[in-house]
Amino acid sequence: MATGLRIDSLPGAAPENDHKEDIVRVGVIGYGYWGPNIVRNFHAQERSRVVAVCDTSVKSLQRVRQAHPEMPVTQEYSDLLEAANIDVAAIVTPVWTHYELAKAALENGKHVFVEKPFTCTTAQAEELIELAERKHLKIMVDHTFLFTGAVRRIRQLIDDGTLGELYYYDSTRVNLGLFQHDVNVIWDLAPHDLSIMDYLIKEKPEAVVATGERHLNGVADVAFLTLYYPNNMIGHINVNWLSPVKVRTTLIGGVKKMQVWNDLEADEKIKIYDKGVEMSGDVYKLLVSYRAGDMWAPRVEQVEALKIEAAYFIECILSDKRPFNDGIAGLHVVRMLEAADRSLEQKGKIVQL
Amino acid sequence: MATGLRIDSLPGAAPENDHKEDIVRVGVIGYGYWGPNIVRNFHAQERSRVVAVCDTSVKSLQRVRQAHPEMPVTQEYSDLLEAANIDVAAIVTPVWTHYELAKAALENGKHVFVEKPFTCTTAQAEELIELAERKHLKIMVDHTFLFTGAVRRIRQLIDDGTLGELYYYDSTRVNLGLFQHDVNVIWDLAPHDLSIMDYLIKEKPEAVVATGERHLNGVADVAFLTLYYPNNMIGHINVNWLSPVKVRTTLIGGVKKMQVWNDLEADEKIKIYDKGVEMSGDVYKLLVSYRAGDMWAPRVEQVEALKIEAAYFIECILSDKRPFNDGIAGLHVVRMLEAADRSLEQKGKIVQL
Amino acid sequence: MATGLRIDSLPGAAPENDHKEDIVRVGVIGYGYWGPNIVRNFHAQERSRVVAVCDTSVKSLQRVRQAHPEMPVTQEYSDLLEAANIDVAAIVTPVWTHYELAKAALENGKHVFVEKPFTCTTAQAEELIELAERKHLKIMVDHTFLFTGAVRRIRQLIDDGTLGELYYYDSTRVNLGLFQHDVNVIWDLAPHDLSIMDYLIKEKPEAVVATGERHLNGVADVAFLTLYYPNNMIGHINVNWLSPVKVRTTLIGGVKKMQVWNDLEADEKIKIYDKGVEMSGDVYKLLVSYRAGDMWAPRVEQVEALKIEAAYFIECILSDKRPFNDGIAGLHVVRMLEAADRSLEQKGKIVQL
Amino acid sequence: MATGLRIDSLPGAAPENDHKEDIVRVGVIGYGYWGPNIVRNFHAQERSRVVAVCDTSVKSLQRVRQAHPEMPVTQEYSDLLEAANIDVAAIVTPVWTHYELAKAALENGKHVFVEKPFTCTTAQAEELIELAERKHLKIMVDHTFLFTGAVRRIRQLIDDGTLGELYYYDSTRVNLGLFQHDVNVIWDLAPHDLSIMDYLIKEKPEAVVATGERHLNGVADVAFLTLYYPNNMIGHINVNWLSPVKVRTTLIGGVKKMQVWNDLEADEKIKIYDKGVEMSGDVYKLLVSYRAGDMWAPRVEQVEALKIEAAYFIECILSDKRPFNDGIAGLHVVRMLEAADRSLEQKGKIVQL
Repeated sequence: MATGLRIDSLPGAAPENDHKEDIVRVGVIGYGYWGPNIVRNFHAQERSRVVAVCDTSVKSLQRVRQAHPEMPVTQEYSDLLEAANIDVAAIVTPVWTHYELAKAALENGKHVFVEKPFTCTTAQAEELIELAERKHLKIMVDHTFLFTGAVRRIRQLIDDGTLGELYYYDSTRVNLGLFQHDVNVIWDLAPHDLSIMDYLIKEKPEAVVATGERHLNGVADVAFLTLYYPNNMIGHINVNWLSPVKVRTTLIGGVKKMQVWNDLEADEKIKIYDKGVEMSGDVYKLLVSYRAGDMWAPRVEQVEALKIEAAYFIECILSDKRPFNDGIAGLHVVRMLEAADRSLEQKGKIVQL
Repeated sequence: MATGLRIDSLPGAAPENDHKEDIVRVGVIGYGYWGPNIVRNFHAQERSRVVAVCDTSVKSLQRVRQAHPEMPVTQEYSDLLEAANIDVAAIVTPVWTHYELAKAALENGKHVFVEKPFTCTTAQAEELIELAERKHLKIMVDHTFLFTGAVRRIRQLIDDGTLGELYYYDSTRVNLGLFQHDVNVIWDLAPHDLSIMDYLIKEKPEAVVATGERHLNGVADVAFLTLYYPNNMIGHINVNWLSPVKVRTTLIGGVKKMQVWNDLEADEKIKIYDKGVEMSGDVYKLLVSYRAGDMWAPRVEQVEALKIEAAYFIECILSDKRPFNDGIAGLHVVRMLEAADRSLEQKGKIVQL
Repeated sequence: MATGLRIDSLPGAAPENDHKEDIVRVGVIGYGYWGPNIVRNFHAQERSRVVAVCDTSVKSLQRVRQAHPEMPVTQEYSDLLEAANIDVAAIVTPVWTHYELAKAALENGKHVFVEKPFTCTTAQAEELIELAERKHLKIMVDHTFLFTGAVRRIRQLIDDGTLGELYYYDSTRVNLGLFQHDVNVIWDLAPHDLSIMDYLIKEKPEAVVATGERHLNGVADVAFLTLYYPNNMIGHINVNWLSPVKVRTTLIGGVKKMQVWNDLEADEKIKIYDKGVEMSGDVYKLLVSYRAGDMWAPRVEQVEALKIEAAYFIECILSDKRPFNDGIAGLHVVRMLEAADRSLEQKGKIVQL
Repeated sequence: MATGLRIDSLPGAAPENDHKEDIVRVGVIGYGYWGPNIVRNFHAQERSRVVAVCDTSVKSLQRVRQAHPEMPVTQEYSDLLEAANIDVAAIVTPVWTHYELAKAALENGKHVFVEKPFTCTTAQAEELIELAERKHLKIMVDHTFLFTGAVRRIRQLIDDGTLGELYYYDSTRVNLGLFQHDVNVIWDLAPHDLSIMDYLIKEKPEAVVATGERHLNGVADVAFLTLYYPNNMIGHINVNWLSPVKVRTTLIGGVKKMQVWNDLEADEKIKIYDKGVEMSGDVYKLLVSYRAGDMWAPRVEQVEALKIEAAYFIECILSDKRPFNDGIAGLHVVRMLEAADRSLEQKGKIVQL
């Protein structure tokens, strides 16, 4: 079993690609819940490699070692941010650290890939955007959902006019835990919906109303957001850490068609209903009639969203394009979160945006 | 085929019960969508009979005739309210007519069974309650859901401490239509939830926040209510006339157990989850741990709710008991609806109760 | 409340239609579980009336009286079969009585509407068919499912080539009870599937294999049928009286599309999947590739099937047309049931048809 | 980024465990669909290591390299079977190769872990069992399902009498593809059910009836198995490669309780219904009454089954215990498959076991 079995002797094994100029080198900070996915996906890209991982926890670094035995690791993020052989800093840490880490990364000339939500405040987000601009560096905020087959398909259905003008967007995103120590349930779960709405809906919300309650550790664990849009379009987000069941369902009502997106369905995630209302008669005697036709579940691409997102970021860097989920997209979400918090504290007082 | 086949000649057919003193005679006003159920259920009771039906529409009266060939009918409600042989007026008409009809009925010495919502305003409700009190007559507001096996079972689970103190009550009640001309979606769909919450939850809500939007005929067709209760308990109701799918799901989170009530399930309407959160540690280092145990779906009685409700009203009249779903229960719901409307008009401004 | 309220005084109430020549007069024998639906539906037709109901049980006749106070009733079926004012005998009794009752009805010159399964034996069915032929009378076997929106839609999808040549038809029809004393689970539940397959599938089955087991009262309560068709098409029926859950699901695989029919779904009963398999390569190196495209749920008409069926039978009688669900269709099902019983007794021995 | 980041310098990183006598060294043959899971799970065990992987395909070996950069690989299985540093040969190849590979492994003194189905014939299985016996080596057949939380929970519910004597076991296991070139759908899908039934049910089946049909590549792609057990217990397995939807549902009816196991449910995989039938009266007038009580979904352990299975095999080897899923268990399944094939060829002719 000794020598002959080395992989190097594989017939036909290709020599490693060494065109360093075409390879984006990524350093990953944070190897908690989501970090392993970031490492795996940037590492598996043809045009990128993860060249180091940083985490303050030794246990996390041992997990790195198990999965990637040869990966250099460190407990000091400055090691990583100052390393010359790193092009991108991927920041996969709690939100309260994003600003400091991203700022240091940009100042060290690194592009930044950062978890959602982008920052704790709009002021931080604006500062980072400006800094990146000045240094000609890219920021991508990891709004992973925008790269799922489902969201891309819904975008298409809105853009091509299938749904028609939107009446409402109503998302329920509830489950048991995971409780965060530093943020409330809105900052934990709503960024998904806020980034998706920002991506799908052409108009921007004009005001937000948030209600909710805290029961356990001093931060809201149940919350309800209403977003007022122009033209009577309305958005609603129901987030809850205390639900016995996991729900990921979004109803979207349009003038022409209506849609249910159940992200927990294995196959038929999106269902388009040829259902609606037609109004006739005059204002004094309005007649409402219902249309109930076929239902249709378009096939949704099943590729891992993060894989597509990573490839897209690499592409943006190599061909100097601005990603659509850039710092500005991140800022939009942070602005909504800030406004929601202000409204929540005042028990639903409307906050204009 | 001639004579011998008359039912009168049936061997063993019991003579009709004619103890008039034990029979409550009901006159029904309104034979639209819900009226036929009222007639059928009061007619089928052992201790009540429907003795007349009133509707302004000839078409509706023809439907009465088809179902009950011998039933006296009229287009004039005063015929019915002034008839000496009627003990109860069942008012199954649009909400804007309730006050006038119920007042006339009470003034004519009739007990009143009235559809939900009770009245258009709290002032009207209070006046009717006082009038009934003065005349020693009963009012029952038809909050049918309180008589379903599901709601009675949930009440039991709350009362016997199975769920523990409540964290939240979150109901989604959406479907396509039916649009009403005179009321918005809150007045149409939320009375169900408001009456159930009034029945289930010991504390009374302190404030309400309502948001929503109108898209078609000038009244809100999508709306979201938040109810603030004492002790951080929170309620939420999502009502929508523009949903492609029908949803009737309520999540109830308690300290000990959590519950999902899906009223559209044929069998397992109620599911109790042995799931929850335990907190430990001190305020500086809070540890959250999750409990995920068995699920349990208690058998729910399947008797038609309206049948039980009708029997209960007859019993209340015959033994001079006050029904729990009386005018006061109706008033509670109207008060919430009024407050919700005020909040809705001001885009979520909190309204104290 | 006295005189003025009689329905006769309704403004605009039409005088009763008395053109007796256009009205088919139906006598119903049997008022158990299904009888009330038969009475209601033949009675509500414009061109038919139920003129008498027969049941040996006084209790059943009292139920007739409650629902239809003026309906003549009898305990003697000969009263009904000999009555001159009856055109059709609707036989809604246990299967072992069908032959005798239908024969007497035909001999008395009545058309026959009879519950499924048609008869206990093919010999009986053939005799009745011949008798009806001779007397120029119609037989309709109540295969109600053939008149549902779902089955008619599936027929369309097969006829217009949407599904393509069929690979298989696989039905699961299980629930808890109702146990029958006189027949096994095959005779109770499989006639639905057998009549549907007879209606949908152009080819006739060539052989049947049945397995199953008895656990309680001496007749099989769990059974599985396989039907061999020409061209490798195969059918399968799973029937079970001992299932804790009710299932009514049929998978139909076609060369072009595949279909799932879940009859318990309120809305999307039929789902068409653009899924399939393509074969390429030669016999030595066959390549299989899968096609997984959109899913589509066509709208299914929701009218009560029995209403359509009753109207159709009346139409067949008045215009002297042969119903497609006639005695021959009934015979096809009985032949399959007989064969299934023979196979079942021999533990799956194939029975050629 | 140079030296300081090596994982070797991790504070607190434990030295590698080198007690070779306690470590079982596994060589894996076959790295197709399932192989990666086998490698990952035996490699992650505390007391085992994968020390080489063999596959005839260079592409597969390159996938090994990506996942495990330092893993020795080979295209020659004899390299692996003759290597002195290997204790266990894990055979994860098509079924027609199992006999030859397992025999060579045993002859070389290796324990054998082999995919299901064990072998192509009972004769092969018996020979391997005897060979292992003679050489004092272990065989484990990879009936992974026996190590899932669901199956272990059901076993408990049967063993502790919760379900009572069994009436039937009815499994539906259908999906689109994957077509196999060398085996039919019975050999592909039914081994799961056959091994589970062998594990759960105390009695052994006495006879089998199989029906089915071939449509594409000459082997049956749709098939139905009935298993006759003592005491009127009956088993049924529905397997299909041409289903548009994936179904993994098993109904189990017992005298005391009934059960539905839906393996595709994320949470409530097992539901126990307090439903059943009670018989009373004598043979001439049998009364059947139904019991419909609560439903209960016990929590099911979610650990990866293969991880538990791998640990169990290692434990069996180190402490010289006979695994319950040994060659004999594998033989039971092969015997059923052989019999099913014989019955299938004769269109359902019963085959005694």
